[in-house]
Amino acid sequence: MIKIVLIRHGQSQWNLENRFTGWTDIDLSPTGFEEARIAGGILLRNGYVFDIAYTSYLKRAIRTLWIILDQMDLMWIPVFKTWMLNERHYGALQGLNKAETALKYGDEQVHEWRRSVHIRPPALQLTDTRCERSDRRYAGIEQCVPLTENLDDTKARALVYWNETIQPALKSGSRVLIAAHGNTLRALVQYLDQIPEDGIADLNIPTGTPLVYELDDNLKPLRHYFLGESGEVEGRSVTDPLT
Amino acid sequence: MIKIVLIRHGQSQWNLENRFTGWTDIDLSPTGFEEARIAGGILLRNGYVFDIAYTSYLKRAIRTLWIILDQMDLMWIPVFKTWMLNERHYGALQGLNKAETALKYGDEQVHEWRRSVHIRPPALQLTDTRCERSDRRYAGIEQCVPLTENLDDTKARALVYWNETIQPALKSGSRVLIAAHGNTLRALVQYLDQIPEDGIADLNIPTGTPLVYELDDNLKPLRHYFLGESGEVEGRSVTDPLT
Repeated sequence: MIKIVLIRHGQSQWNLENRFTGWTDIDLSPTGFEEARIAGGILLRNGYVFDIAYTSYLKRAIRTLWIILDQMDLMWIPVFKTWMLNERHYGALQGLNKAETALKYGDEQVHEWRRSVHIRPPALQLTDTRCERSDRRYAGIEQCVPLTENLDDTKARALVYWNETIQPALKSGSRVLIAAHGNTLRALVQYLDQIPEDGIADLNIPTGTPLVYELDDNLKPLRHYFLGESGEVEGRSVTDPLT
Repeated sequence: MIKIVLIRHGQSQWNLENRFTGWTDIDLSPTGFEEARIAGGILLRNGYVFDIAYTSYLKRAIRTLWIILDQMDLMWIPVFKTWMLNERHYGALQGLNKAETALKYGDEQVHEWRRSVHIRPPALQLTDTRCERSDRRYAGIEQCVPLTENLDDTKARALVYWNETIQPALKSGSRVLIAAHGNTLRALVQYLDQIPEDGIADLNIPTGTPLVYELDDNLKPLRHYFLGESGEVEGRSVTDPLT
């Protein structure tokens, strides 16, 4: 039986300020640091060990991973970072306050932007200073850098990485930890559990909480659960969020 | 012109306690954390940028690197860890206090163990709890894990990594940072500057101080210097240590 652990980064400063973040490289809040520290301790005390870890190009996920690896005395394991695990790109909404945006465009529109699988927020202009195509970290893959994304777009790139990189590692017996973002993890979970499109809107991954998937040899999910101080957290599922 | 930056980890807890460390995975002391933070600031304010970083399997070097990358807003760059950049293995001396060891074996013997290119300290026994061959991080390469090393042994493995991995990265134009250890960096410096064997005993790399090598297209050194708050540190060379 194969186990993989998914963790959404701890609370970021913009989670706290209720702003759309997307690819903006915002750090953890003090609460986020603490969530990561607690998650690392929970994994350690529940006997988890990892051989390899994957994360995004964004520091809120990388720092969450670093804190966990530090807590688990696993700073030495290989860590691979990829833009394909970055948060969903929120287009021209990035940086805007969610409540103000809802006042301006209406709750329904904002809910659609946030939760619809198919609808994309307004795209960033190439001349917008927020546009990541001129960011050095994406040099060489500028054409892959989105100007906006719907969840399907995010899912498509996350699954490329899953299929090409993470799956082979799992099949070779590596124990894998993925530290990523709300929407890339929703996309993975939707894929693993074959959740229909109309079920995805209610799927929320809480921050800083280890989510364990047990998979069979073909990487089909057998079961999943969140991990708390004394092991599996009863009665919780990914569609029954903690937050 | 190609630039590469070498940095020895900040002060470790066992540097502070004057104990032989070698492959023992000892963390930075509070002073070491601060040295790393200062080094990151110096690199940032002197306009340095890196595309890739290399470090060892030991947390005092990894943490030094993490702190520097954090300071430079470069947490996202690829980091490769290798046992081949680990500190020189100190055999059965690992964990012993240097002053007590000198009292027991004599200053001259200890100086030879520490500084001779050819002499190895007494080897660790396979049954010794300090022996790293049973450490999970070296699984698969147990036969490469030394039981003791002289500086030539350390140099040989560090140069394998230099030749096979770091050189190609430099030649492809990547700006490289190496966070490693006193003896692996001494070995690299001896190789780069073609320092004769009888010159190596006096070669010391200070902790937490960026050491810049400027190389020509064939990776032959043009010059080197330590980096301080306002750029190149005048009048200092690797044989004229700061500490």
